[in-house]
Amino acid sequence: MHNGSKVSLPVIKRLPKYYRYLNTLRENGVTNISSRELAAHLGTTASQVRQDFNCFGDVNGRQGIGYSVDTLLTMMESLLFGDGELIPAIQIGAGRLGKAVSRFISRETNGYKLTAVFDADPAEVGHHIGDSDIAIHHIDDLVDFCKEHKPRVAVLCVPRESAYHLTEQLVELGIEGFWNFSHYDMSVDYPNVVVENVHLGDSLMSLGYRLRNDNY
Amino acid sequence: MHNGSKVSLPVIKRLPKYYRYLNTLRENGVTNISSRELAAHLGTTASQVRQDFNCFGDVNGRQGIGYSVDTLLTMMESLLFGDGELIPAIQIGAGRLGKAVSRFISRETNGYKLTAVFDADPAEVGHHIGDSDIAIHHIDDLVDFCKEHKPRVAVLCVPRESAYHLTEQLVELGIEGFWNFSHYDMSVDYPNVVVENVHLGDSLMSLGYRLRNDNY
Repeated sequence: MHNGSKVSLPVIKRLPKYYRYLNTLRENGVTNISSRELAAHLGTTASQVRQDFNCFGDVNGRQGIGYSVDTLLTMMESLLFGDGELIPAIQIGAGRLGKAVSRFISRETNGYKLTAVFDADPAEVGHHIGDSDIAIHHIDDLVDFCKEHKPRVAVLCVPRESAYHLTEQLVELGIEGFWNFSHYDMSVDYPNVVVENVHLGDSLMSLGYRLRNDNY
Repeated sequence: MHNGSKVSLPVIKRLPKYYRYLNTLRENGVTNISSRELAAHLGTTASQVRQDFNCFGDVNGRQGIGYSVDTLLTMMESLLFGDGELIPAIQIGAGRLGKAVSRFISRETNGYKLTAVFDADPAEVGHHIGDSDIAIHHIDDLVDFCKEHKPRVAVLCVPRESAYHLTEQLVELGIEGFWNFSHYDMSVDYPNVVVENVHLGDSLMSLGYRLRNDNY
């Protein structure tokens, strides 16, 4: 039905924004919306919205009525969450950033099931991460755990050097996707894994550049 | 010297990556690098690297020698950090995510000076955020503080609804840039502010989409 493998990254990045906004509309009882109205709320153009929807599937707005909010949401749920099966994930790094971001991947509405967290610090091992019931294991148990539980995604909340050394091992253990907070971008060395980078320092530097150079 | 206002967002997003990698090169004693080598390390093309550098300033590689690492770094430091003056910033929200991200903006190497954190929770007020010496104030003190200290950037670690209500006030108080972790994207309503969004849930959904639809 959809053209999954042909969708470009900027379009994919907009998909969650459409999904969130359409959910708000449904909660507010809105049943139809035009590409023009959607575009205004998302800071883009009606033509872009129509193009994006064409990338995702066979969905057509009707003249004077617009798109059905339910139809769009059904399509997007299928794209984002498949048949609803959660993607098994592990996290490496239970420091302050790790504790904060584990809440996002352990929230089932995002489509994942966080099964274990690993850390090298003995003081963390044996505790649960944050206020979840997910245990923090010692990093030495990583290989055995992965062989038994076959996680598909790894969240990396470790420094660049550790990420560099861990990635080869994780890819060998079957990890297909990384939610990467480290400054090592593994997609250059491992083109066949899916990587979502969250580089907080880079984001701050970009903001600073735009402020200092009046680039709005 | 540079063409600040003409640089597109994707180019700006690559600037911190160049900057970080060139710093690593300098630390390792490398004095020159070709666009081809840079491209290989950053997962892009030599032609893209040359185009990006042309956007940023008058910097030329020499045939057979490449670019001077020092010259590139001097140019990038000037673009990213100006004359070295730190941008005064405040943060709203001292919850778990707020505690984790405050470390990035309070690290002076990123170009900012975090001057205060605000929260509505009386249990947080009066403490320092994380292991810094930056005080957490009650949100009711926000207006007076901004009038006196004139911060230019606000970090928003609050839910969407709070962000929506706070933004108008913050823009009126002179905030020019947002490091935004909330799901309210103020750049649609306030086109004249600079916004860097870090939408962690969206990032996870994009990763899930790409895994489920084999979009590498």
